[in-house]
Amino acid sequence: MIYIPIIVSILTIGFVLYLIQIIKSKPSGSEKMIAIAKAIQEGAVSYLKRQYRTMGLVSIVIFIVLWLTLGFNTSLGFLIGAVLSALSGFIGMMVSTRANIRVAEAAKKGIKPALDISFKGGLVTGLLVVSLGLLSVAGFYLITQDLKALIALGFGASLISVFARIGGGIYTKAADVGADLVGKVEKGIPEDDPRNPAVIADQVGDNVGDCAGMAADIFETYTVTIIATMILGSLLFNNQSFILFPLLLASVSIIASIVGSFFVKGKKIMRALYRGIIVSALLSALGFYYVGMFLFSRLEIKGGYLTTIYYPLIIGLLVAGAMFIITEYYTSKKYSPVRKIAKSSETGHATNIITGLANSLQSTALPIIIISLGIIFSYNFGGVYGIALAALAMLSLAGIVVGVDAYGPITDNAGGIAEMSELPEEVREVTDALDSVGNTTKAVTKGYAIASAGLAALVLFSAYSQELIDRGFTAKFFLDDPKVIAGLFIGGLLPYLFASLAMSSVGKAAGAVVEEVRRQFREISGLMQGTAKPEYAKCVDIVTKASIKQMIIPALIPIVFPILIGFTLGPEALGGLLIGSIITGLFVAISMTTGGAAWDNAKKYIEEGNLGGKGSPAHQAAVTGDTVGDPYKDTAGPAINPMIKVLNIVALLIVAFLI
Amino acid sequence: MIYIPIIVSILTIGFVLYLIQIIKSKPSGSEKMIAIAKAIQEGAVSYLKRQYRTMGLVSIVIFIVLWLTLGFNTSLGFLIGAVLSALSGFIGMMVSTRANIRVAEAAKKGIKPALDISFKGGLVTGLLVVSLGLLSVAGFYLITQDLKALIALGFGASLISVFARIGGGIYTKAADVGADLVGKVEKGIPEDDPRNPAVIADQVGDNVGDCAGMAADIFETYTVTIIATMILGSLLFNNQSFILFPLLLASVSIIASIVGSFFVKGKKIMRALYRGIIVSALLSALGFYYVGMFLFSRLEIKGGYLTTIYYPLIIGLLVAGAMFIITEYYTSKKYSPVRKIAKSSETGHATNIITGLANSLQSTALPIIIISLGIIFSYNFGGVYGIALAALAMLSLAGIVVGVDAYGPITDNAGGIAEMSELPEEVREVTDALDSVGNTTKAVTKGYAIASAGLAALVLFSAYSQELIDRGFTAKFFLDDPKVIAGLFIGGLLPYLFASLAMSSVGKAAGAVVEEVRRQFREISGLMQGTAKPEYAKCVDIVTKASIKQMIIPALIPIVFPILIGFTLGPEALGGLLIGSIITGLFVAISMTTGGAAWDNAKKYIEEGNLGGKGSPAHQAAVTGDTVGDPYKDTAGPAINPMIKVLNIVALLIVAFLI
Repeated sequence: MIYIPIIVSILTIGFVLYLIQIIKSKPSGSEKMIAIAKAIQEGAVSYLKRQYRTMGLVSIVIFIVLWLTLGFNTSLGFLIGAVLSALSGFIGMMVSTRANIRVAEAAKKGIKPALDISFKGGLVTGLLVVSLGLLSVAGFYLITQDLKALIALGFGASLISVFARIGGGIYTKAADVGADLVGKVEKGIPEDDPRNPAVIADQVGDNVGDCAGMAADIFETYTVTIIATMILGSLLFNNQSFILFPLLLASVSIIASIVGSFFVKGKKIMRALYRGIIVSALLSALGFYYVGMFLFSRLEIKGGYLTTIYYPLIIGLLVAGAMFIITEYYTSKKYSPVRKIAKSSETGHATNIITGLANSLQSTALPIIIISLGIIFSYNFGGVYGIALAALAMLSLAGIVVGVDAYGPITDNAGGIAEMSELPEEVREVTDALDSVGNTTKAVTKGYAIASAGLAALVLFSAYSQELIDRGFTAKFFLDDPKVIAGLFIGGLLPYLFASLAMSSVGKAAGAVVEEVRRQFREISGLMQGTAKPEYAKCVDIVTKASIKQMIIPALIPIVFPILIGFTLGPEALGGLLIGSIITGLFVAISMTTGGAAWDNAKKYIEEGNLGGKGSPAHQAAVTGDTVGDPYKDTAGPAINPMIKVLNIVALLIVAFLI
Repeated sequence: MIYIPIIVSILTIGFVLYLIQIIKSKPSGSEKMIAIAKAIQEGAVSYLKRQYRTMGLVSIVIFIVLWLTLGFNTSLGFLIGAVLSALSGFIGMMVSTRANIRVAEAAKKGIKPALDISFKGGLVTGLLVVSLGLLSVAGFYLITQDLKALIALGFGASLISVFARIGGGIYTKAADVGADLVGKVEKGIPEDDPRNPAVIADQVGDNVGDCAGMAADIFETYTVTIIATMILGSLLFNNQSFILFPLLLASVSIIASIVGSFFVKGKKIMRALYRGIIVSALLSALGFYYVGMFLFSRLEIKGGYLTTIYYPLIIGLLVAGAMFIITEYYTSKKYSPVRKIAKSSETGHATNIITGLANSLQSTALPIIIISLGIIFSYNFGGVYGIALAALAMLSLAGIVVGVDAYGPITDNAGGIAEMSELPEEVREVTDALDSVGNTTKAVTKGYAIASAGLAALVLFSAYSQELIDRGFTAKFFLDDPKVIAGLFIGGLLPYLFASLAMSSVGKAAGAVVEEVRRQFREISGLMQGTAKPEYAKCVDIVTKASIKQMIIPALIPIVFPILIGFTLGPEALGGLLIGSIITGLFVAISMTTGGAAWDNAKKYIEEGNLGGKGSPAHQAAVTGDTVGDPYKDTAGPAINPMIKVLNIVALLIVAFLI
C-alpha cells in the first residue's frame, strides 16, 4: 500500500507539468512587457542562487555532523528534505515569474481569463509542494524503513524553510518599504511607477518572499506533520497501519485538491477561490472516512474508529475553516477592525499605529480559543494521536490553499508589469481587483499556516516526550519544576528575539534602499520627468546582499538554543523551551501576520476614496501603517512557523544524547 | 514578634507625616502658579472621586459575594486591601500635587533644592505604600490569624490596582496623546504650552496615572508577595517562624529605605538617586542576614540557613540590580538602542516605528534570561520557598524605588507649571533636567516592578499548586496534558487581550481629546495668539469620563477568566492558564514598558539638537514614535503586573470549590 502515495504524487507531478505547459502556451504580451518580466526573473534567479549557495554551505556542515553522529541514513534524509524544500520553492517561483506576464496580457480580456492563469500558476506551486513532500516521505520510508532518519528529512526541510522565509521575507519587505518610502511618501509617485529605481527589486521580492519562501514553508510544515504523525503512531501503537495512514490521508487530499481546483472559476474572485477550497475539504472528509474504514476495519480500535480516528480529522478541517473566517474578519476591508484603523488614520500617523497595534494584539484571541478547543476536543476523542490527526487533516488541504496563496504574488507582479509597460487603465483595474483579493487570501493562508504549525509543533513535542519515555526517562514536565518554568521563559523568548532580528534586518536593508533610491533621484537628471531610466539592477543588488547577510543569525537561533539548553539544563528544561516557543510563537506570529494585513487593507480602503482618499493626510498616515505592517506580515510573522518546528525537530534529534 | 512590623510601619507613617510637613513648609510661588497647581489638583481629585465610586460599586458586589461564599474574615480582608490600596494612591497623589508647585519654585535656586523637594515628595508615596502594606498584612494577621483571609486582602489590593493602573493609564495617555497630536504636531506649539486646551488634563494625568496608579500597583505587588510568602511558608513548613519571617524582612527593608533616602543628595541627579537605592539594598542585605540568623538559629534548616534562606534573598537583590542596569541600557539616550531609533527617524515615521518595535521585542531577552537564572538558582538553593524569598527581597526595596519613581511625575508637573506660568528659561532647564532623569527612572522602576511581579505571580502559582495538594488533589500540571496546554494558550491570551483593550481605549479617548482641542482652536478666536484662554475643564471632563468608562471591561478580565476556565476545564487547565499568563504577560509588559520609554528618549535625544533637532523631519517621526510608545509604556504595559496577580489570587480563592 506504500506505493499508493508514491503513485499519487508522481501522477500529480505529471499534472503539474501539464499545467505548466498550459500556462506557457498563453500569449505573453508586448516586447516591453517581456523585457520587464525578464528583469524580474533574472533578479529572482540571481537572488535564489546566492541564497542557495549560503544555505548549501550551512547544509553541508550539518550533513557531515549528522553523518558522524547519527549515521548515513539520517544525513541522507536531511539532504533530501533540504534539496526538495529548496526545489519546490525554486520551481514555484520560476512558474510564477512566467505566469505574471501572461496574467497581465490576459487581463486585457477581463477578470475571468486573468484569474484562470494566475490561479493555475499558483496551483503549480501548491501541487508541487504537496506532491514532492509526499513523494519524499513515502519514498524515503519505502527505501530505508527508518523513521528516525525521517525526522532528519523534516529537519532538512524546516531548516531550508527558515532560511527561505527569513531571507525572502527580508528581501521582499526591504525592497517594498524602500520603494514606498521614497516613491510614494517623498516623491508622491504611484506604486509600481517605472520611474522608481526600486520597482524591479520590489517585484523580485514578491517572488522570492511570497512565492519561493512561502512554498518552502508549507513544504516543511506539510512533510513534518506527516512525519510526526507517522512517528507518534509507531511509538504509541506499534502497528504498521498507523504509519501508513498519514500517507494515505495525504494522497486522498491531493486528489481532492486537484478536483477542487476545477471549481475555481468565474468572475467573483473570492467566491471562486473559496469554492475550490470548500470542495476540496468536503471531498477530503469523504475520502478520509473510506480510507480509515478500509485500513482499520480489521483492527480493534479502542473507542471505535469513528470517534478516535475520524472525528479528530473532521475537527482539523473545522479548525482550518474557522481560521479562514476569523482571519478574513480581521483583515478584510468589509469589517470593522480594518475600518477602525482607517478611521484612526484621520488623526495622524500615531493613532493609526496605536489602533493597528491594538488590533494586532486583539486578533490573536479567537484563533487561540479555536486552537485550544481543537486541542481539547481532538484529544478527548483520540488522545495525542487525535491532535496529530487534526493537524494532518488541516494541512492536507495545503495543495489548494497554497494555490490560492501563490496566486497573490503572480497578480501583484502582473499589476506591476501592467503599470510599468503602460498598459491601458482597464488592465490595471483587473489586476488590482485580483491583487486586492490576493492580499486577503495571503493573510488568510498565513493564519491557516500558523494554526497548523502550532498543532504540528505540539505533535512534535509529543513525539519528543514519547521518545523520552521510550528511552526510559521517567521525569515528567511539571509546571512546578523551575527548570520547566525557566525553559518556558527561554522558549517564549525565542520568537521575540527572532522577530526582533527579522524586523531590524528589514529596517537596515530598507534604509540602504532608501538611500540608493534617493541618490538616483538626486543624481540621475530627468528621472522624475521620465526621460531617463533608473538603474534598477543596483537596487536589486543592494537588497540581495543585505538580505543574505541578515538571514544567517536569526536562522541559527532555533538550532543553537535547544542544543544549548538541552545540554546545560537537561531534557525537562528543553521540554519547557519547546512549549514556551509554541505559546509565544503563536501569539507573535498571529498578531504580526493578521495585524500587518489589516494595516495594508486599511490603506487600500482609504485609496478606494474613503476618508479623503489618496493623497489625503489620512492616506499618508495609512501608508505609514502599511509600511510598518510589511515586515510584520511578510518577514517576522510567517518565519516563526518554520522556526518553532526546527526547534522541536532539533530536540527530537538530540534526545538520544540528553539522557 | 508580630508587633515589630506593626511598630516599624507606624513609625514610618510618622516619618511620612513629618516629610509632608517639610514639603508644605516650602514656598509655593506666585499666585499664577498657585492657580495652575490648583486646577491640576482639582482635576485629579475629581477624577479619583469618580474612579473610586466606580471601583467602590464593583468592590461592594465582590465584598458581598465573598462574605456569602467564604465568610466574613475573607470579605473583611478584601475590603481592607481595597481601601488601603486606594488610600495609598490617593495620599500619594495629594502630596504629589502639592510638591509640584514647590519644586517649580525651588528650581529657581537650582537643581539641588528642586531635587530635594521632588524626591521627598516621591518618598512620601514610596514609604506610605510599604508602611500601609506592611501594617495591613501584619495587623490583619495579628487580629484574625487567618492566612486564607489574607489572600482576600491581597485580592482587594490587586483589584483596585488593576482599576487604578488601567483607568489612570488611559487617562494620562489619552490626555498626553491628545494634547501632543494637536499641539505639537498640528500647531507646532511646545509641550505644556498654556494655549493648549488639553494641557491641564495632561498634567492631571501625570498624577492619576504615574503617581496614584503606580502607588496602587506597587502596594499590591508588595502586599501580595508578603502574603504569598507567608502562605507558602506555612503550607511547606508548618512553622510559625516562616510566617513571621517575611514580615520581619519587610520591616528591615523599610528602615534600610529610610536610611538610604538620606543619601539622595547632590547635583548629579541620577547618581544621587541610585546612591539611595544602593545604600538601601546593602543595608537590607545586612539586616536580612541578622534577622534570619536570629529567627532560624533555633531551627534545624535542611541545607543550612545561609544556603536555603539567605542566598535566595541575595539573589533577589541581584536580580533587582540587573533589571535596573538592563532597563537603563535599553532606555537611556546614552546607549545604542535609543540612538538607533533616533537614527531611523531620519528615514521617516515608518522606519522609526519599525526600529522601535524591533527594539521593544529585543528588550525582553536579557530580563527574561536574568529572571530565568534567578528562578533556577533561588530554587536550587531554597526550593519553591527560595523563589518566594527572592521575590520578597526584590520587592523589599519598594519604599525607596517607588520614591525614585514617584519623583518623576512631580518634576514633570513642575516643568508644566513653570512653562504655563512663564517662569524664566533657567527654571524650565532645571525641571527639564529632573524630568529627563525621571523618564529613565520611571522605565527602570517599571522593569523592576514587572520582574518582581513575575516572580510574585510564580509564588502565587506555587501556593495554588500546594493548596491543591493540601486538599488531596493528586493530578499534576503536565505539559503533555492537553488541558494544561489549552490553559497555557488561554492564559497566554489574556495579556494580549488586556493590552489590546487598553491600547484601543487610549486611542478612543485620545481621539475625543483631539477633536475637542481642534474645536477649541477653531472656535475660540485669539487662542493661538494667546489673547484668549482655552477651556481647560472641558478637556479634563472628557478624559475623565472616557477613561472611567473604558477601564471596566479590561479590569474584569482577570476575575472572569479564571472562574470560567476553572469551573469548565478544571484545576489543571486553570494552572496552565496561570503560568500562560505569566509567560506572555512578562513579554508583553517588558516589551511595552521598555520599548515605550526608548521611543520617548529617542525623541528627547533629537530634541537635544541631534540629527536635525527640534522641528526637523526626523523630530516629527520621533514624535510619532513617542506617541505610540505612550500607551505602551504607561497604560497597557504596567497594568499587566496587577492583572497577572489578580488572576493568580482569584485562582487561590476559588480553589476550594474546584475539587
